[in-house]
Amino acid sequence: MFPFEHIIILDKKSKVSVYKQVAFAIIDAIRNGVLKPGTHLPSSRELAALLHVHRKTVIAAYDELEAQEWITVYPRRYVTVAENLPLLQPKKWNENKTGFSYDNELNVPYRIIDPHVPSENGIPEVIIDDGHPDVRLSPISDLLKTYRLLTSRTYAIKNAHIGTAQGTLKLREELVHYLSVTRGLNISADNILITHGAQMSIYLAAQLLLNSQSAIIVGKPNYGVANKTFAETGATLIEVPVDKEGIDTDKIEQLCKKEKISAVYVIPHHHYPTTVTLSVERRMKLLELSARFSFVIIEDDYDYDYHYASSPYLPLASAHHQGNVIYIGSFSKILDPSLRIGFMVAPKNFVAQCTALRKIIDVGGDGYMQNALAMLIKEGELKRHLNKAKKMYHQRRDFLDELLRNRLSGHVTYSLPSGGMAVWIMLQKDFSVDDLQQSGKLKIIRTDSELNAFRFGFASMDERELEAAVNLLASRLGKRDL
Amino acid sequence: MFPFEHIIILDKKSKVSVYKQVAFAIIDAIRNGVLKPGTHLPSSRELAALLHVHRKTVIAAYDELEAQEWITVYPRRYVTVAENLPLLQPKKWNENKTGFSYDNELNVPYRIIDPHVPSENGIPEVIIDDGHPDVRLSPISDLLKTYRLLTSRTYAIKNAHIGTAQGTLKLREELVHYLSVTRGLNISADNILITHGAQMSIYLAAQLLLNSQSAIIVGKPNYGVANKTFAETGATLIEVPVDKEGIDTDKIEQLCKKEKISAVYVIPHHHYPTTVTLSVERRMKLLELSARFSFVIIEDDYDYDYHYASSPYLPLASAHHQGNVIYIGSFSKILDPSLRIGFMVAPKNFVAQCTALRKIIDVGGDGYMQNALAMLIKEGELKRHLNKAKKMYHQRRDFLDELLRNRLSGHVTYSLPSGGMAVWIMLQKDFSVDDLQQSGKLKIIRTDSELNAFRFGFASMDERELEAAVNLLASRLGKRDL
Repeated sequence: MFPFEHIIILDKKSKVSVYKQVAFAIIDAIRNGVLKPGTHLPSSRELAALLHVHRKTVIAAYDELEAQEWITVYPRRYVTVAENLPLLQPKKWNENKTGFSYDNELNVPYRIIDPHVPSENGIPEVIIDDGHPDVRLSPISDLLKTYRLLTSRTYAIKNAHIGTAQGTLKLREELVHYLSVTRGLNISADNILITHGAQMSIYLAAQLLLNSQSAIIVGKPNYGVANKTFAETGATLIEVPVDKEGIDTDKIEQLCKKEKISAVYVIPHHHYPTTVTLSVERRMKLLELSARFSFVIIEDDYDYDYHYASSPYLPLASAHHQGNVIYIGSFSKILDPSLRIGFMVAPKNFVAQCTALRKIIDVGGDGYMQNALAMLIKEGELKRHLNKAKKMYHQRRDFLDELLRNRLSGHVTYSLPSGGMAVWIMLQKDFSVDDLQQSGKLKIIRTDSELNAFRFGFASMDERELEAAVNLLASRLGKRDL
Repeated sequence: MFPFEHIIILDKKSKVSVYKQVAFAIIDAIRNGVLKPGTHLPSSRELAALLHVHRKTVIAAYDELEAQEWITVYPRRYVTVAENLPLLQPKKWNENKTGFSYDNELNVPYRIIDPHVPSENGIPEVIIDDGHPDVRLSPISDLLKTYRLLTSRTYAIKNAHIGTAQGTLKLREELVHYLSVTRGLNISADNILITHGAQMSIYLAAQLLLNSQSAIIVGKPNYGVANKTFAETGATLIEVPVDKEGIDTDKIEQLCKKEKISAVYVIPHHHYPTTVTLSVERRMKLLELSARFSFVIIEDDYDYDYHYASSPYLPLASAHHQGNVIYIGSFSKILDPSLRIGFMVAPKNFVAQCTALRKIIDVGGDGYMQNALAMLIKEGELKRHLNKAKKMYHQRRDFLDELLRNRLSGHVTYSLPSGGMAVWIMLQKDFSVDDLQQSGKLKIIRTDSELNAFRFGFASMDERELEAAVNLLASRLGKRDL
């Protein structure tokens, strides 16, 4: 007889119940072509004896197999593999033992050059991020309290999924008010799309505005992920230098005179990575150029809320324009990088197109979380948090400045940014950012492969942590000196 | 003198502080070209008198404007609009009052035919969804308790954003075990990508597998959103009939002999919208064809967990194959449609490519929520919930069956599905789905514009609610009879 005891290997320690293990093994043998359509199976008594299990276990397995139509049971006569199944070439014996299906590769042509390499092997002692908020200061607890409250209301529950593709009406209406007060924007709820963070707004805008025939202007250096996002559409990226006043608008003018530019991507506050703020003069110039040459401005104002030198500059979006400023903001930078809620402000018809695209990307966001955030804004909790965090980050920036001057002078140069959550630190030529990381103790997020510099995110660290990080840097830099 | 009192209109009820209103208004006038570079501004004393505000308010406004470099203050002499600003053509008087910037349209060529139309005006009494879980049964409260716990741990906080592009290692490792026990899948954490729901897995797979030169086979009728997602890549969609055993594999074979097929999209359990389950025979046939003709199977098993007639059928993904089965699942259907966590199982290199693409779409998911879900699975809470919910939904399906037979016979036809959360109901010819909805009291989610049928999601309603919904349908159908 067929060696069923070799096909059905039971693992009594497994969490899969024994009868299911029996059924799964028989299904596997059928799918491999080892058991052919019409083949007689042993009686439940015989199989139970072979496998040293209770007969009831085999009966349960056969019931399962019959319900799923893998086998045919002829009552009081015999059991066979279902006759209508396709006849397969059996795999070689043990072939399925040599490797699992998913050990194979699936090769598809793909445009993105650097696929993600997982790097979670051990978390280093010190991580210098590129500008994260300090989640310990965040009113996450209040937010979740509201979230739980919302999920416990029958009415809210039944309707939480409605309209989440564009974002819940509650949050959008709250933002109409919030963006008017904080940014001087005159908009309605139809002009807002709630996204899964600022990056999703960039992606949606890129997908809708650009294609392989279009050209977009970006700063140099620039936020690398944005560059990748634009490149993914097949568009040509034209780099324009970013100096101490932000992106060079004279260069943009020259380019516009020569060729059709579809869009300009600009980070008006604390440019990534260099942290400069776009000057008032260039803001006006950029708006004037966009009207003259009909390009869209993608204004990525992710870092609006943390400006220390003055109030933040009013967005380009709040000036008068032809509806061709797409304004992007985020709450991930305020509350928690893990809490992915951002928004886009744009003309209604563009928001409708973005929403349609967003629906096929991921249906929509978390309606409860959006409504919980709306409550947090409404009750002034967000503003209180922002005031508190701004004060704290301001202090931390100054504390880091002092540490850098005292302990790293001669090794690094930097300009203190007027806002934001990171200092852009340039290393002396005899050190590279990679040198600093080699110990495994320290992880730094590289922002630009060409420049020997990195962003020191100070907002997420308290004074003790800032000191420890700078000391670690000092000891690395010191060692090389010897 | 310049009529500053007409440019600076103060609203004392506004939440924007008065000094900011003054500053914003002057910025606006500069940006509009109304106030030109070099123009003298009134002294703080003069302007305070004009506006009937305290002089300190004007000083604060001027400080703000100076910090942002809109104006130049010559101490003890005068204040001017900054001289380096671009000279603009002034807008006509009141031009900015006639409409806001975002009332304009932004027109870009776009491929998706039907942009989203917001439809939140009033929520109807009864919503028949197309198969949602009952969130009231969900262990959301436990999940959020864990979430809060995680956000209060310093270590977790510092590292919550690490690796969320692919999904946290904790959740992926938990899924390796969970998918082995529930679905017989032999995989490692590298084979898993955590997505923002099943739809994102479909989107990522479509973007990477398809382009304007490729062809994909889909069922007819099919999940409309999936069709749109494939069409968005420019690929050709070839429709193959879905009958009582699922998608017609003989037709697929014929097509493969004629032309190159890149992928086949299949919903093996409770096909959307018709709720049929793919038979064992066709499952085997499909796997055989995919090996023979080298196409990728996109197996969207969103409804795996709710099968009532037997255990669910083992996925195609758990059979032996060349790594060309992309398996898609979701927790949104188990816990909450608003909680967007799903997963994709695929070969490691494909997961890496999907992760790279996902990074530019939205960076990553919510790491806390993912880890909270991992805990829920680990502690057996998810399984307990599934068992409870399955029993409940099974009862609700049977209760709806009874209601339909008693109150709607003659008006509708349907086959009771062997699992899932919805019954596919066909209306008699003299009624249309739209007729039923006209009252505004009832909302039904249309799944296919060609078929006079709809999905009656029974899982989200308790018996009282099911009865109310059927009664409402009966009264609508009855009225037309008269």
